[in-house]
Amino acid sequence: MSVDVTALERQARRSLPAAVYDYFAGGSGREQTLRASEAAWREVALLPRVLRDVSRVDTSTEVSSASLRTPVGVAPTAFHGLAHPDGELATAAGAAAAGALYVMSTRSSRRIEDCAAATAAAGGTWWFQAYVMRDRELTAGLVRRAAAAGAAAIVLTGDTPVVGRKRRDRGDSVVTEAMFRANIGPDADLGAAEQAADVTFADIGWLGELSGLPVIVKGVLRPGDALACAGHGAAGVIVSNHGGRQLDGAIAPARALPGVVAALRDTPRCEVFADGGLRTGEDVLAALALGARAVFVGRPVLWALACGGAGCVRDLLTGLTTDLGHAMALAGAARIADLDGLAAADLDGLAAADLAAADLAAVDPSPR
Amino acid sequence: MSVDVTALERQARRSLPAAVYDYFAGGSGREQTLRASEAAWREVALLPRVLRDVSRVDTSTEVSSASLRTPVGVAPTAFHGLAHPDGELATAAGAAAAGALYVMSTRSSRRIEDCAAATAAAGGTWWFQAYVMRDRELTAGLVRRAAAAGAAAIVLTGDTPVVGRKRRDRGDSVVTEAMFRANIGPDADLGAAEQAADVTFADIGWLGELSGLPVIVKGVLRPGDALACAGHGAAGVIVSNHGGRQLDGAIAPARALPGVVAALRDTPRCEVFADGGLRTGEDVLAALALGARAVFVGRPVLWALACGGAGCVRDLLTGLTTDLGHAMALAGAARIADLDGLAAADLDGLAAADLAAADLAAVDPSPR
Amino acid sequence: MSVDVTALERQARRSLPAAVYDYFAGGSGREQTLRASEAAWREVALLPRVLRDVSRVDTSTEVSSASLRTPVGVAPTAFHGLAHPDGELATAAGAAAAGALYVMSTRSSRRIEDCAAATAAAGGTWWFQAYVMRDRELTAGLVRRAAAAGAAAIVLTGDTPVVGRKRRDRGDSVVTEAMFRANIGPDADLGAAEQAADVTFADIGWLGELSGLPVIVKGVLRPGDALACAGHGAAGVIVSNHGGRQLDGAIAPARALPGVVAALRDTPRCEVFADGGLRTGEDVLAALALGARAVFVGRPVLWALACGGAGCVRDLLTGLTTDLGHAMALAGAARIADLDGLAAADLDGLAAADLAAADLAAVDPSPR
Amino acid sequence: MSVDVTALERQARRSLPAAVYDYFAGGSGREQTLRASEAAWREVALLPRVLRDVSRVDTSTEVSSASLRTPVGVAPTAFHGLAHPDGELATAAGAAAAGALYVMSTRSSRRIEDCAAATAAAGGTWWFQAYVMRDRELTAGLVRRAAAAGAAAIVLTGDTPVVGRKRRDRGDSVVTEAMFRANIGPDADLGAAEQAADVTFADIGWLGELSGLPVIVKGVLRPGDALACAGHGAAGVIVSNHGGRQLDGAIAPARALPGVVAALRDTPRCEVFADGGLRTGEDVLAALALGARAVFVGRPVLWALACGGAGCVRDLLTGLTTDLGHAMALAGAARIADLDGLAAADLDGLAAADLAAADLAAVDPSPR
Repeated sequence: MSVDVTALERQARRSLPAAVYDYFAGGSGREQTLRASEAAWREVALLPRVLRDVSRVDTSTEVSSASLRTPVGVAPTAFHGLAHPDGELATAAGAAAAGALYVMSTRSSRRIEDCAAATAAAGGTWWFQAYVMRDRELTAGLVRRAAAAGAAAIVLTGDTPVVGRKRRDRGDSVVTEAMFRANIGPDADLGAAEQAADVTFADIGWLGELSGLPVIVKGVLRPGDALACAGHGAAGVIVSNHGGRQLDGAIAPARALPGVVAALRDTPRCEVFADGGLRTGEDVLAALALGARAVFVGRPVLWALACGGAGCVRDLLTGLTTDLGHAMALAGAARIADLDGLAAADLDGLAAADLAAADLAAVDPSPR
Repeated sequence: MSVDVTALERQARRSLPAAVYDYFAGGSGREQTLRASEAAWREVALLPRVLRDVSRVDTSTEVSSASLRTPVGVAPTAFHGLAHPDGELATAAGAAAAGALYVMSTRSSRRIEDCAAATAAAGGTWWFQAYVMRDRELTAGLVRRAAAAGAAAIVLTGDTPVVGRKRRDRGDSVVTEAMFRANIGPDADLGAAEQAADVTFADIGWLGELSGLPVIVKGVLRPGDALACAGHGAAGVIVSNHGGRQLDGAIAPARALPGVVAALRDTPRCEVFADGGLRTGEDVLAALALGARAVFVGRPVLWALACGGAGCVRDLLTGLTTDLGHAMALAGAARIADLDGLAAADLDGLAAADLAAADLAAVDPSPR
Repeated sequence: MSVDVTALERQARRSLPAAVYDYFAGGSGREQTLRASEAAWREVALLPRVLRDVSRVDTSTEVSSASLRTPVGVAPTAFHGLAHPDGELATAAGAAAAGALYVMSTRSSRRIEDCAAATAAAGGTWWFQAYVMRDRELTAGLVRRAAAAGAAAIVLTGDTPVVGRKRRDRGDSVVTEAMFRANIGPDADLGAAEQAADVTFADIGWLGELSGLPVIVKGVLRPGDALACAGHGAAGVIVSNHGGRQLDGAIAPARALPGVVAALRDTPRCEVFADGGLRTGEDVLAALALGARAVFVGRPVLWALACGGAGCVRDLLTGLTTDLGHAMALAGAARIADLDGLAAADLDGLAAADLAAADLAAVDPSPR
Repeated sequence: MSVDVTALERQARRSLPAAVYDYFAGGSGREQTLRASEAAWREVALLPRVLRDVSRVDTSTEVSSASLRTPVGVAPTAFHGLAHPDGELATAAGAAAAGALYVMSTRSSRRIEDCAAATAAAGGTWWFQAYVMRDRELTAGLVRRAAAAGAAAIVLTGDTPVVGRKRRDRGDSVVTEAMFRANIGPDADLGAAEQAADVTFADIGWLGELSGLPVIVKGVLRPGDALACAGHGAAGVIVSNHGGRQLDGAIAPARALPGVVAALRDTPRCEVFADGGLRTGEDVLAALALGARAVFVGRPVLWALACGGAGCVRDLLTGLTTDLGHAMALAGAARIADLDGLAAADLDGLAAADLAAADLAAVDPSPR
C-alpha cells in the first residue's frame, strides 16, 4: 500500500481538537451503520483474472461526460475549515492536482467562487452538492452561483430531510456561525438555511432547470428509488448511507450496490456511484467490480487535510489511485471496464438481486 | 437519540437491590434467547427511501380500533411495586401521559381498579393481560373486573403453561405475598392462582365471551399458531418469546415476525404486534417495517420506573416515540404505513417465509 | 434448570487426575468438531407452540420396541473405572434407576454379565456396543455373551476403523491392561482386540444373525449411508461424530441430523438417534424436534460418575428428563411426537435437505 | 496428528531473523486473504462415510501422468537459502525422500541443475515454476535448462503480472543479489528479470513448445479462466491466491475450488490442484474432497527447512501424508478417488456453482 488511511487518521486525531475529531469521525445512533459500512467492502470476495496483459493499466474514466484521471473522488463533507486553515481551498487544490473529481459541500467554510477558482487553477472538475433548504430561494441562489462558477453537475442530497443524531455530539459548538454563513451570507435566516423535509423527486427537475446541469441524487439505497430518480431525469445516483450519519441500521453501500446496479442496467444514462467506508485501493476495486462507475471518499480527505493541507489531499488521492491501479494489475484488469464481474456473486449479492426484483415490481418510475 | 435505555438500565441497577434487578433482568436457561432477541433487531438491514416529503411525520396509529399517539406500548411485566413505591399507578399514569397503550399485568402489585383509574385520569387506553389460572373462576373474576374497569382488550398469555426457570433466581423471596395477593385477594388459594397448563385455543372464545372484549394472544412465534388464533377469533397476536424468560432457544421475535405477518396477510382483522429486546427508535422502526402494527417494551419501563416513577416512564415512551419519528423521517416515511417493506428481505426473512408456507400447510385453523 | 452439566464437569475436573480428565474430555485434531458439536444444538432456533394442553407431559417413548421413561440414554464410553471405583456397575444402576437406556461399551472396565445384572436389578434396558475387532471371533464371543446376558440390541460402531488421534493424549497410560482385559480375558492377543479396519455394511447382517438382536449403526452422518444401513437390515442409526474424537472437521450432529431423517422418512423400521454435545433439556428437545427418536449423552455421565457414582448418574438422567419435560411444556408439546417440526427450518437444514437429495441419488442401498 | 505445523512455525520463528520470518510469513495489504485462506479449509464440513473397508489405505495418486506416493507436494516459494544453508538442495532431497512432487521456484537460491540432481538422487519428480520475465529470452533459457535437467512439467505463474505489496516488508534487504542471480547469472539485467506484465493465455502454448512439457497454470480462481487455460492447452490449473501475497481480498482457495472443479468436469485432461493455507491432514482431505487432484504446501516447508533441513522437510511431508491416510481411514476412503463428495455441499459451495455457471457463460475458451 502506498496509502495507509488508518495511520493518517491516527495522525489527524492527534492534531485535531477532540470535539472536531468526533464531529468528523462519529456516526448516528449506535454507530452500527458506520462500522458495518467499512467492514462490508472487506467482505466482498474478489475473483482476480489471470493471464491478461496489464502492462499498461489505465485508471482513467469518464464520469457524467467528463474525463477523469481517477475514479476516486472527494465526497462532500462539511466545514473543512475545522480541519485546516485553508479549508476547502486546500481540498479543491489537492483534488484537482490529483485529477480527481471534487464534490463541493453546501456547508463549505469557504465561498463557492473561491473554491471553484482553486479547482480551476489546477484544471480540476467539480460538482456542487446542494441541500434543499427550507427557504428554496436560498438554495436556488447557491445553485445558480455554483453553475456560474463552473460546476459540472449538481448533487442533490436525498437522505437528509432531517439531520441524524450523532452519539458523540457535544452540541454544535465546533461549527462557528461565521463558518456556517460563509456561503449563505451574513443576513440569511439560520432556520431558513436548515434542510427542508419536503424534498421530493420533483426537485431533481427543479434543480436541473435552475442550473442547466446534470443532477445526481446522493443517498440512494433502494433499487426502486434508483429507478424513480432515473425516471425523474437524474443523471446518476450515489449509493450512500451518508457515512453512517443518518439512519442507523441502514444497509452498507457494498450490500446495496448490486441491487441498484441491477435496477439501472438498462438505463445507462443514469450512472451509479458509491461512497462510505472505502479506505484502500482494494476497497475501491471492490466497489467498481460491483458496478460503481466511480467512488467518493469523505473522512480520509479530512484526515489528509488535517495532516497536511492540499499536498496531503493530493497525495491521498494519488496514492489511492496508484493502489487501485496496482490492484487492477493484480486482478488482471487493464482498464476499469475490465473490473466488471470481478466480485464473487455472494449470498448478499443474490439477496440484493432478489430485492431489486421485489422493489422494482412495486415502483412507478414516473418517467419524466 | 433522545432516549438511552442502556444508561437508564445502568442507573436503575445502581438503585435497585441486586435480587430485584436480577428478577427483572434475567432470562431462562443459558439466556440465549434473552441475548439473541435484542441482537436480532439490530441485524435487520434497513433500506430507507429518499426524496419523500416528511415535513410532517405522524407516529399515530390505530390499534384494535383505538387511536393512539404512538405504536410503542407498555408490555405486561410483574410487580412494579418492586421498582417503585407507586408501582403500576406510576406506570399507568406515565403511559397515559405519553399517549401509549398500557398492558396491565395480572401480576400487578396494585389493584386493577386503581391502575385503571390512573390511566383514565390521563385519558389513556389499557389492556388487561390474563394468565389463565388453575382456578378458572379466579381468572374470570379478574377479567370481569378488568372489563368493568374499562380495559379495551384482554391479552391472553399463550406461552406460559408453566414458568420458565431463570438462572439468576435466588428463590421467590423478592415477591412478597402481599404483592402477590394484590388482585386475587387475601383468601385465594395460592396454588389455584398459578398458571393453568391446559389453556388452549378454545380459551380465546371463553375470554371473549366473558369480557365482551377483543382477545389478543401473546407469545405467538409460529405462522400456523397465528392462523389458528385468528381462526378461533383472536383480534391479534403478539410475536413474543416472553422476554427470553420461557423456552430458552426460542427464536428471536425479529426472526419470527415475517412468517407470522405472511400468515395473517389475508386476515387483517387479526393484527400482529411484537415485543422483546426493543431498545431504540430504530429497533421499533425495524419491527414496524417487518410488519408489526405496534410494539411493546417491558424491561425499559421497569428501569424508567426505578429511576423516576411516572414522569420517567412518560419520558421514556415519549422519547422512544420521538426517536421513532426521527427515524421515520430519515427513512422517508411520513406515516407508519409507509414503513412497509423498509427492511431488506434478508436470508432469515426468506427462511421465515419458507417456514410460513410449511407450517401453514400443516395447520387446521378451525374457523370459529 | 435442574441439571447444570457445566458445574458437574467443573466438579469432576477437580476430583479426577488431569490425565483422566483429558482422556475423557478431549477430542481429535484441532478439536473443531468437539466444539462445533456442542455449539450447533444451541444454534437450532426453536418455534414453540402455544395454547396446547400440557397439563400432563409425557417424556416416555418407545425405542426399538422397548418402552422407556425417557428418550435420554447413556452413550457408550470407555472404561468407567477411571471415573469411579464401581465403574460401569454404577452407570448401569444409575441409568436403570432413571428408566434410561444404557448402551454398554465393549471397552467396559467391568464384565458384561456384571453390568447386565446391575441393569436387570433395577429393571433397566441395555444395548451392547460392539467394536468389530481384528479377531472377529473375539467380537463374536462378546456379542454372544451380551445377547445371553440380556442385551436388547447390538450397536455396531461404524466410524472407528482406526482410532482418532487426540491432541491431549499423553500416551495410553491412563488405561491399565487389567481394565482393557476385563471382557476379552487375560489371554487374548491385544493386537487382535484392536478395531478391525475392514468392517462393512455386511457386518450388520453378521451381527444380527450372531445375536438374534436388532442392530443399530453408530456414527452415521450421511443420508446415503443411513439408507444403506437400512437396506442391510439395520434397525436404527445413531447420528454421531463419536463425540468429536474421530475425524476432526466432521459435521456436527445437529447439522447432519435433518438430512438423515429425511433419507429415512419412508423407512420407519430404521429409527434415527443422535449423540454428541447435548448438555441441557433444551438441547435434547432440539434433537427430538429435528427428528431424533432418542438421544444419548456421554461425557456428562462420566462427570456424574466421577462426582457421585450411581446416584449421581441417576440424578443427571432424571434431571435432564425433568428439564426436557419442562421444555416440552414450554414448547406446547405434551408428548414427544408433538415435537416434530418444532425447530425452525433454518438454512443449514435446507442445505442438509439438498445434501440428502444429492447423496441419495448416488446410493445403491443394496436391499437385503 | 503426527505433524504440528503451528509448533513447527513457532520453532522456525525463533531460529530465523525477524525480517526473514516476516518475508516468508507475511501477506499483502491487510492480510485478509492470508488469514481467510487458512480459515476456509477448516470451515469445510466433512461428511465421513461409514462401514467401508479401509484396511489398506492408499494415498498414492497419479498427477500429470506421474505416479506419486502422496498428493501433498511442495509449492514453489522463493529463496530457500534464507531458511537453511543448503537451500533448495535440502528441499529437493526432502521432497523426493517423501515421494512428494517438488515444484522448483524460478527464484531459487540454488542452480536448477543442482536442485534437479538432488531430486534425481532420491528418485523424485519435479516441476519448474516459471515467471515470465520482461526479457522473455531469460525465461526461455531457464525453461530450456529445466527441461534438460528433467523437469516433468512447467508451472506458469498466472497471478503475478506485478508483485503484491506486503505490509511487513522492510525493503528488499533480506534477498541478496547473489541469491537473486543464482539462476539468471551474474550478467543479466535485473530489471529484465522482473515479472512481465503482459503474460497471456498464449504463453501457455509458448512454454509448452519451448519445453516439450505439459504446462500448468498457477493462480487460477475463476471457472472461466480455468476453462480458458484448458482451451489454450494447459494440462492443469492450480487454484491459488499466491499464499495471500498478491491481491488482498482475493477469495480463499477452499471457496474458489468447487467452481473451478465444476468448470473442468468435462475436461479431465486439465487437472485441478490447490494451494494456500493447508496445515493438516484434514485440510488436505478437505481439498481433495472438494475435487483437487493434489495440493501443495508452501510456508510449512519453509518452517521445516529452517528447523532441520532435508530431514525435517521429509518428515513434514511424510507426516502430512500419514495424517491424510489416517483421516482417509476415518472418512471411510481407502483410495483418494473415494474422497469425492465427502465435503458437505455448503452454501458457499452452492454460490461457487452459481458463479461457475455465470462466469462460463461469459467465456470464450478459444480452443487450441
